[in-house]
Amino acid sequence: MSKGLTSRETDYSQWYNELVSKADLAEHSSVKGCMVIKPYGYAIWEKMQAVLDQKFKDTGHSNAYFPLFIPKSFFSKEASHVEGFATECAVVTHYRLKNDGNGNIIVDETAKLEEELIVRPTSETIIWNTYKGWIQSYRDLPILVNQWANVVRWEMRTRLFLRTTEFLWQEGHTAHATQTEAIAETEQMLNVYADFAENWMAVPVIRGKKTANERFAGALDTYCIEALMQDGKALQAGTSHFLGQNFAKAFDVKFTNKEGKIEYVWASSWGVSTRLIGALIMAHSDDFGLVLPPKMAPIQVVIVPIYKTDEELEKISAVAQQIINDLKAKGISVKYDSRDTQRPGFKFAEYEMKGVPLRIAIGGRDLENNTVELARRDTRTKETVTNQGLATLIENLLEEIQQSIFEKALQNRAEKSTNVDTYEEFKKVLDDKTGFVYAHWDGTPETETKIKEETKATIRCIPLDNPLEDGVCIYSGKPSTQRVVFARAY
Amino acid sequence: MSKGLTSRETDYSQWYNELVSKADLAEHSSVKGCMVIKPYGYAIWEKMQAVLDQKFKDTGHSNAYFPLFIPKSFFSKEASHVEGFATECAVVTHYRLKNDGNGNIIVDETAKLEEELIVRPTSETIIWNTYKGWIQSYRDLPILVNQWANVVRWEMRTRLFLRTTEFLWQEGHTAHATQTEAIAETEQMLNVYADFAENWMAVPVIRGKKTANERFAGALDTYCIEALMQDGKALQAGTSHFLGQNFAKAFDVKFTNKEGKIEYVWASSWGVSTRLIGALIMAHSDDFGLVLPPKMAPIQVVIVPIYKTDEELEKISAVAQQIINDLKAKGISVKYDSRDTQRPGFKFAEYEMKGVPLRIAIGGRDLENNTVELARRDTRTKETVTNQGLATLIENLLEEIQQSIFEKALQNRAEKSTNVDTYEEFKKVLDDKTGFVYAHWDGTPETETKIKEETKATIRCIPLDNPLEDGVCIYSGKPSTQRVVFARAY
Repeated sequence: MSKGLTSRETDYSQWYNELVSKADLAEHSSVKGCMVIKPYGYAIWEKMQAVLDQKFKDTGHSNAYFPLFIPKSFFSKEASHVEGFATECAVVTHYRLKNDGNGNIIVDETAKLEEELIVRPTSETIIWNTYKGWIQSYRDLPILVNQWANVVRWEMRTRLFLRTTEFLWQEGHTAHATQTEAIAETEQMLNVYADFAENWMAVPVIRGKKTANERFAGALDTYCIEALMQDGKALQAGTSHFLGQNFAKAFDVKFTNKEGKIEYVWASSWGVSTRLIGALIMAHSDDFGLVLPPKMAPIQVVIVPIYKTDEELEKISAVAQQIINDLKAKGISVKYDSRDTQRPGFKFAEYEMKGVPLRIAIGGRDLENNTVELARRDTRTKETVTNQGLATLIENLLEEIQQSIFEKALQNRAEKSTNVDTYEEFKKVLDDKTGFVYAHWDGTPETETKIKEETKATIRCIPLDNPLEDGVCIYSGKPSTQRVVFARAY
Repeated sequence: MSKGLTSRETDYSQWYNELVSKADLAEHSSVKGCMVIKPYGYAIWEKMQAVLDQKFKDTGHSNAYFPLFIPKSFFSKEASHVEGFATECAVVTHYRLKNDGNGNIIVDETAKLEEELIVRPTSETIIWNTYKGWIQSYRDLPILVNQWANVVRWEMRTRLFLRTTEFLWQEGHTAHATQTEAIAETEQMLNVYADFAENWMAVPVIRGKKTANERFAGALDTYCIEALMQDGKALQAGTSHFLGQNFAKAFDVKFTNKEGKIEYVWASSWGVSTRLIGALIMAHSDDFGLVLPPKMAPIQVVIVPIYKTDEELEKISAVAQQIINDLKAKGISVKYDSRDTQRPGFKFAEYEMKGVPLRIAIGGRDLENNTVELARRDTRTKETVTNQGLATLIENLLEEIQQSIFEKALQNRAEKSTNVDTYEEFKKVLDDKTGFVYAHWDGTPETETKIKEETKATIRCIPLDNPLEDGVCIYSGKPSTQRVVFARAY
């Protein structure tokens, strides 16, 4: 391990970049805006995928795969959709390279596509063009399909995991016979995301609806989960869109309902991405590195032997093997690091940087006493415990850590959630205290835009469980019936 | 279910296309050469992924993710590599669309990339450019990384699963300190693929090396597994490449070895793709539809109730539920199809088309007798059996079916493997009997090319366990020390 991280206090952004690098999560590639997700970072994504995929299947969805490329003309069919994505599209124009005769590889101009292909920034258009062939009658509905895929949205300023030109995600695309069903699906998937964020990632989220300004391009309603990072900035962690009949109309997807009438199909789409890894990092980690909730940790327990002789190592390894067997029997992932090329202190720092929730160290005295040293990553506390019932102790401790990390994030959010009633106060809180700011708003896009221009704060959402109360807009003074959640955001 | 399939006898190619469509596996998309993998087809891919991924991890590999785009200049760095892929590259030249003012969406010419980006046809170049930053010392080796990804190779003539412009695959890319290690890795992964093909897909394969003509662009040696389809054509089902130091030299990837000397790194790469689904279909299926070996079947057992009244259905459902519980406890996937919109005969044909290995039908008489009707998909045989110990019977039967499907494919291959000693005989066997043709070859690319031009047969491989025997080349009459395997291929 090289030297430690810049502290969050000193430079949060720098801290984040260093952590992503030193915990071996990801790096910038030679392709502008695109990242390389390194094995340890990808292992976290695999944990996320496994849990989410099971939740999607438990709610009746199947996976499928649609083309990477979208004909340009498809894109233009839903007006607000193309407007939303046109400025960030990677465009394929040719399908062949050639040697120019001087040893240079150049694009073969004779292999120009008649119609340009867009590298998918999202797949509503290609999927609804496909669904047209799948749907004739109400018997063909609902269609509950998800896709795990890469997407490309050209970004000028990128940050690893948070904003990259290419990223990995899942996108659900469902088709329904009624508006009610489509909205129920949209809400159900929001709840799946919120459950995942809170109970697996240990990140508390606000469930809400986006304002018209912040809606997905082509949606009638965008639902979202909003999380708060340690620096008081918000992060949109997942979205679920009620698309109405917009894409069905754009691609002429109709069905015969039970009464024999022909109608357009209703739609939803929903997605989360590798951005969640950014959220996970920023919600929990500290100046010593990554802090992972046990349910998202590729390695939940690491065992480090501390020995002077090969004979001692052999004895420690025998004890370690028993612990490994006991932990694996409980479904706990464990790594035994007996590398002789690195010293224990180096290993301790490395697993701390990588956020392994529990570290077991076993030394000569432990052998004598039938004990191990157990260190918690989240609290950085250590204790010496007996080997008797160790696996059960660890199992309980991992649950406790999971809960404790969530509580800490919840407390951070509570401390950084503020009701304000004036614009002055609003700006002061944004600058000094940061966090979620609950304020009255007059409901107009104009006011929202002005506040954004003046303060860089956006309306993160209108919470679903919002209490109604009379008030006046902090900006325009016009009447309002509820507070909305403002924040500066990633 | 609409009417049945064209028979294999009548038109094998048509049979394949109809089966892919009617079994709901995949379809052509509106994007030329790109396919939509439908949920049932994708479920087979997920089964394949799960098994292979575990095998990769069991052999010490981790997953990671590298960019979709490759700068054109990277491509040119390894001469034979770019030569191999240049003519099938999708090229991204722009990163923005705009409205032309008349309501048309056009490419924004002001957003032209300085250097074109290639949509990856394979990732050796971008990965070795990345590995340069990961490797300094022998302590950093080996690197054992795999990626699950989509790739694009522009194809003019496409067939679903077998040859499509975009396809899904995994690509392993490993880096080693010695040639010996890199070759051992290459061979190990070939064996992993062969094990998967034979013991999971029930497809017997020949393990061999490609001739120089058929090698991967940039490899020193390409190992392959070759399977035989029912129509007597060969299909390359997986490849594993020993890349020597070619990519290390192209991207200047050196390391300090244990002796303190600086050397270039040794490499392997290996991959299988959604093409395996094509192999699975063509190896086993019949004129009634897909035949799936149980280990690759998304649904292993389907239960269809046959009833006259709701009361009867209720009783049958109770029996079915008990069977479902028993099967699930054994890890057997089972579906209960009690849809009232379709008749049993329709359902039978549907699950036959979809290759579900076992079908259970339960009717009124079965209720009285405590029996069920059990139908095997592979043999299309039926028997009435008692409910007592049914789950164990089914568990054993699934194993028997797996084995039986493999034996049948093995027998087909044995019948269609022929030793020939003259060119006349060679051509006759290729035309009439088809299959693998074992013949002596003089070892020159020229002879291989001429035979290919004249007969459309290629050397599939030089089998790894090839017995040495003196002979003369069927084409040139020059001496030869071993037979190689020729076939017409997909």
